[in-house]
Amino acid sequence: MLDLQNVKLIVAYEGTHFHGFQVQPRQRTVQRELEKSISLLTQEPVTVIGSGRTDAGVHAWGQTVNFHTRSKIPLERLALALNAVLPKDITVRQASSVSQAFHSRYDAKGKHYRYRIDNERHPNVFGRLYAYHVPQKLDIENMQEASQMLVGTHDFTSFCSAATLVESKVRTVTSVQVRHVLTELNSQEIVIDVRGNGFLYNMVRIIAGTLVDVGKGRMSASAIPSILQARDRIQAGVTAPAQGLMLMEVFYQ
Amino acid sequence: MLDLQNVKLIVAYEGTHFHGFQVQPRQRTVQRELEKSISLLTQEPVTVIGSGRTDAGVHAWGQTVNFHTRSKIPLERLALALNAVLPKDITVRQASSVSQAFHSRYDAKGKHYRYRIDNERHPNVFGRLYAYHVPQKLDIENMQEASQMLVGTHDFTSFCSAATLVESKVRTVTSVQVRHVLTELNSQEIVIDVRGNGFLYNMVRIIAGTLVDVGKGRMSASAIPSILQARDRIQAGVTAPAQGLMLMEVFYQ
Repeated sequence: MLDLQNVKLIVAYEGTHFHGFQVQPRQRTVQRELEKSISLLTQEPVTVIGSGRTDAGVHAWGQTVNFHTRSKIPLERLALALNAVLPKDITVRQASSVSQAFHSRYDAKGKHYRYRIDNERHPNVFGRLYAYHVPQKLDIENMQEASQMLVGTHDFTSFCSAATLVESKVRTVTSVQVRHVLTELNSQEIVIDVRGNGFLYNMVRIIAGTLVDVGKGRMSASAIPSILQARDRIQAGVTAPAQGLMLMEVFYQ
Repeated sequence: MLDLQNVKLIVAYEGTHFHGFQVQPRQRTVQRELEKSISLLTQEPVTVIGSGRTDAGVHAWGQTVNFHTRSKIPLERLALALNAVLPKDITVRQASSVSQAFHSRYDAKGKHYRYRIDNERHPNVFGRLYAYHVPQKLDIENMQEASQMLVGTHDFTSFCSAATLVESKVRTVTSVQVRHVLTELNSQEIVIDVRGNGFLYNMVRIIAGTLVDVGKGRMSASAIPSILQARDRIQAGVTAPAQGLMLMEVFYQ
């Protein structure tokens, strides 16, 4: 038992062909693919702990997981070996040894999510699986103004799926950044980066959908405080589609 | 016959799920999908003329095609209507009316191709369909030096598929640019932009494969002139994989 090692992985995946992160019966999930590939290399059954779930179609650049193993595979080789056996839509970016107590979900102090909006008149064919196409011109200054009203500690009931069953819907959003990006193909995008200490179900996608409504002029930036106060899901905008969302990084310590 | 209109389209497509551009029996091709969708809207049989073929897996941002139609659909609506009926991996970026004589292949004066190399140790999961993963550190200065020796009018026999049957393999490369790109995900890429008056079969992919050999130190930049002079395909590097290549733009006039 003494030689049990706790291994932390930073994992990127394209969510398109997964039914989300978490193991579900008879579905292709990221967790199951990771467990299959790690078991193949270590020749032991393994349970992979993720920092949290991501939905079907949602991508990750910096999902963080950990697992315990008795295997002696050197860590510098583990990432290469895993990338050789994993399906092509999952990649291990980094493997490191962490203390026995480290738990990728319980120890997470915050997360960074990115939401990409393809804001060209005609959809960018290379963005269709990674961005939400909004052909209307969006007023980015109004979106920026609205976004700043979400920063801080609030009850985000209006910004989470009505079916969410958690004790408290109070979360702290530490920053929201809304910016224009011109891609390598000179295609216009609006990118929303949200950082916070924790996120409710669909929270970033509802924030994105609401900011798009503000950008279209359907909703004014000054409406955000009263939407937060209402604690009512239907006050906020629609849930923006899954493919625009990416889990960028999980913060620890 | 007087009201026959010649329509030019600028078309983007993701090549992953196509057997290339040109119609082939029982294969999914870009030309066939365009013809099906245009016929559906115009209610006439149609032949789409492309500026040239692209291979299976090769992408396009600015493929240019033209077709003749008696349909009265206003052009500003045609692109929107086509994008509504086309499969999601093809997008019309622009539609315009051109002179009866315009021919997208015969009138093409040059092309711009881009080749992307994912130069991270572990493959970028979001680049796997759009870039060639080369984990070794590449010497970009040597690649740049080699690339400049390809500029000009040369017999490119060494840089085209040995099976190519054309009268002359003399082509003019007007510029080659090799540069580092840090993607939005802070992932290292090397991007090769090649512009020229015409390209032989596999020419850009063989140029890319050869520049990668130079970047790895397997071949010296100064070897390029003698490779050109040899007029022998086996003197140059391997044909880099299709997914890294994109037809960026076709030049006219």
